[in-house]
Amino acid sequence: MIHIEQVCKQIGNLDNAAMEAARTRQDQLTKPVGSLGRLEALSIQLAAITGDSLPQIQDKVVIVMAGDHGVTREGVSAYPSEVTPQMVINILNGGAAINVLARQAGARVIVVDIGVAVPLESHPELVARKVAPGTANMAQEPAMTSSQAEQAVDVGLEVVEKEIARGLDLVAIGEMGIGNTTPAAAITAALTGAAVADVVGRGTGINDTQLTKKITVVERALVLNQPQSDDPMDVLAKVGGLEIAGMVGVILGAAGKRVPVVIDGFISGAAALVATRLEPRAASFMIASHQSTEIGHRVILESLGLKPLFDFGMRLGEGTGAVLAMHFVESSARILSEMATFTEAGVSEKA
Amino acid sequence: MIHIEQVCKQIGNLDNAAMEAARTRQDQLTKPVGSLGRLEALSIQLAAITGDSLPQIQDKVVIVMAGDHGVTREGVSAYPSEVTPQMVINILNGGAAINVLARQAGARVIVVDIGVAVPLESHPELVARKVAPGTANMAQEPAMTSSQAEQAVDVGLEVVEKEIARGLDLVAIGEMGIGNTTPAAAITAALTGAAVADVVGRGTGINDTQLTKKITVVERALVLNQPQSDDPMDVLAKVGGLEIAGMVGVILGAAGKRVPVVIDGFISGAAALVATRLEPRAASFMIASHQSTEIGHRVILESLGLKPLFDFGMRLGEGTGAVLAMHFVESSARILSEMATFTEAGVSEKA
Repeated sequence: MIHIEQVCKQIGNLDNAAMEAARTRQDQLTKPVGSLGRLEALSIQLAAITGDSLPQIQDKVVIVMAGDHGVTREGVSAYPSEVTPQMVINILNGGAAINVLARQAGARVIVVDIGVAVPLESHPELVARKVAPGTANMAQEPAMTSSQAEQAVDVGLEVVEKEIARGLDLVAIGEMGIGNTTPAAAITAALTGAAVADVVGRGTGINDTQLTKKITVVERALVLNQPQSDDPMDVLAKVGGLEIAGMVGVILGAAGKRVPVVIDGFISGAAALVATRLEPRAASFMIASHQSTEIGHRVILESLGLKPLFDFGMRLGEGTGAVLAMHFVESSARILSEMATFTEAGVSEKA
Repeated sequence: MIHIEQVCKQIGNLDNAAMEAARTRQDQLTKPVGSLGRLEALSIQLAAITGDSLPQIQDKVVIVMAGDHGVTREGVSAYPSEVTPQMVINILNGGAAINVLARQAGARVIVVDIGVAVPLESHPELVARKVAPGTANMAQEPAMTSSQAEQAVDVGLEVVEKEIARGLDLVAIGEMGIGNTTPAAAITAALTGAAVADVVGRGTGINDTQLTKKITVVERALVLNQPQSDDPMDVLAKVGGLEIAGMVGVILGAAGKRVPVVIDGFISGAAALVATRLEPRAASFMIASHQSTEIGHRVILESLGLKPLFDFGMRLGEGTGAVLAMHFVESSARILSEMATFTEAGVSEKA
């Protein structure tokens, strides 16, 4: 915990001077004031986060945390757990949705085995940082020990800090973990007080009977483990997941270094919720990409006070929505830096 | 009109076989069925438009039509007409928002002087196809003669057909024309029957007094010119604009050659409305990019039956929203072509 507490203390406030400079410049660019809407707001947020009134985005990375979930033994997912390692390999081979969208966005993909249940063959692109071979079944016992949860957060911190040292200036978070909408729902209910039935969705596509069961499983896990709503690390350990903890680390590490972090959907949103409860200032460093169809995602975004950029009816995870949003983030930064001002272009201002 | 009628006849139906092949493939890719939401639907639409079940997007262009409006003499705009040529030069110099966003999207920008009021110096990047030095003041007489409107549509047809012959496979439309929300509102009211007050907005940023005046001006233009709602070319000529007519031509030309066309905001939406009234099948070849803040845009999208991809509170024009959306369009095509199937990747399917 010492490391996590130190990182939380490093998270600062937004840079008001850079923010104001960016706002002033937006109003001088050759367009009606405010006419680029959220693109202008995004550029101003980037300036405020980075402390640079002309933020540049050169190196983009999506960090995909992979982990398994003991709770899948309760039959909460449409897919078997073996899909987690299969999809990790698919990502390593460049065939998953996140690879395609990252190529289109010009972002690198980093896959971290933080808790896949089975051993994975070593691969030059795989970051092997397994904390445990999956979580325990939270319907019967705590998903993780406190120590495991802390170690997993540390993995996220270390992975992102290494990338930042290499020059990363925009990070997206994503995950792969069959069953992980179940812990995400449990975290959301525990931290926001929302009713379980209001945060449990169909994940990768379960039927009505499975949905009812999934609600019961989450309720049981909460009653059994009694996660403390005022102790985010307790919630994370008892009803969370290794990949969710890893994403908490990535968020805190990015915020601590003033690097904007793009949040994906429901699972990464649950990580964002934990990070924000550990350090409320972390929320200012986040960009919400899309509105997922998972019902609990809306509860998370409301609690975080974040408005997603688009709603495509997506529910894939892996960081797909976050990587799609990078285009908007980069566009906003380039508008600020590359557009001509009225004076530079010799264009008449408003009458 | 002979040319326009011929092009309308060339516009075909969507290709059902390619559409079904794309849909089938989407369901075999390594993700839960439907989990990429609108990105999947977009890719299927691209297949249906192009007739290629694996559509490729290599060459992207935004065509920016520039023209002036006699109706600005009524004081309907926040900016003076001299801004139209100034902004054309700004675009030619690469300093406008559309240039920045096109660079980010990897799209070429083509600027067409189809009706700027003043002479423009020749420039290697400027397509000089002036039909008239701006429209007449529609509050006093028809904006264009029938012949001018037809010539302007022809310019759009010719510009896009030339690009398609060079290999263009995704086109966005944009415009620059101080005062052009006024004809766009008049067209929308005339073709949809919407009340003028429900389609006139603040454009580049007029105040309440100017807004009231703008509504009166549009009402006067409609009463005076009596555009025939069942004759889209009559509406276009009497209360339209040269750049709007040019965009009608681009849309029809693209649809005729089965090239997807991305619509921007309110003004290009008015062109899309005219094109669809000339040939209803044209709507299937359109992709709505964003929801503009101009109030009349909603009326247009409803009439076209199109759902925008995102709402950023933008109202700039130039094709900015359309070019931003190209990233999504291209992403959707790449998902279809580049993702691995369950079989290829050896990933287990749903239990």
